[in-house]
Amino acid sequence: MSNHPVRSTTEVEVRYAETDQMGVVHHANYLVWFELARTRLCTQSGYQYHQIEDLGFHLMVTSCQVDYRRTARYGETVEVDAWLAELASRRLRFDYAVRRGEELLATGRTEHVWVDAATGRLCRTPEPLRGPFSRLADPSANADS
Amino acid sequence: MSNHPVRSTTEVEVRYAETDQMGVVHHANYLVWFELARTRLCTQSGYQYHQIEDLGFHLMVTSCQVDYRRTARYGETVEVDAWLAELASRRLRFDYAVRRGEELLATGRTEHVWVDAATGRLCRTPEPLRGPFSRLADPSANADS
Amino acid sequence: MSNHPVRSTTEVEVRYAETDQMGVVHHANYLVWFELARTRLCTQSGYQYHQIEDLGFHLMVTSCQVDYRRTARYGETVEVDAWLAELASRRLRFDYAVRRGEELLATGRTEHVWVDAATGRLCRTPEPLRGPFSRLADPSANADS
Amino acid sequence: MSNHPVRSTTEVEVRYAETDQMGVVHHANYLVWFELARTRLCTQSGYQYHQIEDLGFHLMVTSCQVDYRRTARYGETVEVDAWLAELASRRLRFDYAVRRGEELLATGRTEHVWVDAATGRLCRTPEPLRGPFSRLADPSANADS
Repeated sequence: MSNHPVRSTTEVEVRYAETDQMGVVHHANYLVWFELARTRLCTQSGYQYHQIEDLGFHLMVTSCQVDYRRTARYGETVEVDAWLAELASRRLRFDYAVRRGEELLATGRTEHVWVDAATGRLCRTPEPLRGPFSRLADPSANADS
Repeated sequence: MSNHPVRSTTEVEVRYAETDQMGVVHHANYLVWFELARTRLCTQSGYQYHQIEDLGFHLMVTSCQVDYRRTARYGETVEVDAWLAELASRRLRFDYAVRRGEELLATGRTEHVWVDAATGRLCRTPEPLRGPFSRLADPSANADS
Repeated sequence: MSNHPVRSTTEVEVRYAETDQMGVVHHANYLVWFELARTRLCTQSGYQYHQIEDLGFHLMVTSCQVDYRRTARYGETVEVDAWLAELASRRLRFDYAVRRGEELLATGRTEHVWVDAATGRLCRTPEPLRGPFSRLADPSANADS
Repeated sequence: MSNHPVRSTTEVEVRYAETDQMGVVHHANYLVWFELARTRLCTQSGYQYHQIEDLGFHLMVTSCQVDYRRTARYGETVEVDAWLAELASRRLRFDYAVRRGEELLATGRTEHVWVDAATGRLCRTPEPLRGPFSRLADPSANADS
């Protein structure tokens, strides 16, 4: 596994509806932002995430974790970095950082398994996605890996 | 059309995540509450809404309208009334009232069409649902109507 | 009232979390998109919306209406146009159009009143905002109007 | 710390808006359910959560974790258990289990710190809440603990 996976950065303008009565972004929305960043990262693999579903597979979330350091507020735009931190034959993990410029607001991770949409069963990385996801995990590796 | 359609009442405990930085429930959540109340009303037809989808049909929303009179807050439980206000062969309208006891917080309506999930095309009220929905619209009518 | 208010256009990438099991964007999210577009439009007045709140005022939603024509899906980016359709001393109305290129997906409107955050009472357009909002409604009008 | 903290159970009827195009409840909603269950548990301390905020304090989330085992679907009602798993002078942790009858769907935890709303600073457990929260953590302990 490379120490230098492909990293995508997504700008997110905080939505009013994402705030709560504490005056800051409600913590559940970070998972939605992670997903948006994951979508953007997948696009960099050459496959858009919705094309993965068109192939007949889901990347189902099996766990998530978020550590909140500083709050985000309406009126701000934050950046969400995402990268493929672990890639095994049947599961993978994305890591995330939410920043406001240089200031780190939150970090997190989500773990996923591949599910065959037709059967609902877990499966290995679908064949057409192996090359693209390997290159996300380690862009320096041989394209055949 | 009866003036006395079946009316369902659903209690909704305000969720913290539903508030915004104004300190009140964000206005978009009323549509989610309406949907919850519509689900409850459909159940009273004898068909649960998810069973309607199992039959191969969607009740797609074509328009919505909400009038907000008073705010709802975290720590409160509100009641959402729903009833089938109009029932035609191809479209129907639900009306709603959100109350906190006797106090009216909001009113609204949603209009819907039937969609055949397999083809994506608009269709008439699916045959098995005609009797049940007629009785929602007018419980005094003959069950065969 | 001008027939040519300032119009803002906001690109929105559909989020996976915004879809529902019908496979399309859930209808309540259009209100959230409208709000994002309204924020962007307010910025064009010279006041960002969060600065309006810093002045001690809220633009509270009193009604909303949405007409849905075509569905939006994950994997798509839509544009949301917003403009100030009516501006009176105590209330205003924004109109919206959601498009996918030339294709109109939905239209809508929201009505608002000004609320003094300190007292919770309705009020007239706050003085510092009168010029900026008049120019949103009618950019050809005299800046003093 | 007791091994037998007070446990609250909250019934949650899955909302259509909570599903995504995978046909199951979107994973971010579990955090919203946890919050609902936490609210219910707090009520059992003798203080409703909104009363805690009225005292001038927030229980800010510093981290969360969810492990998803089985999916939840529209048409189902799930139960969410919550209990106070750790209680220190400045931080606490709630644990959760989401069940459909005997079947475990997900487990999770959230960590929190006390924030003085007036200053935005971290603080110790507010004095009026010490007894109530100690009894949530360990109902067998002396009420003065």
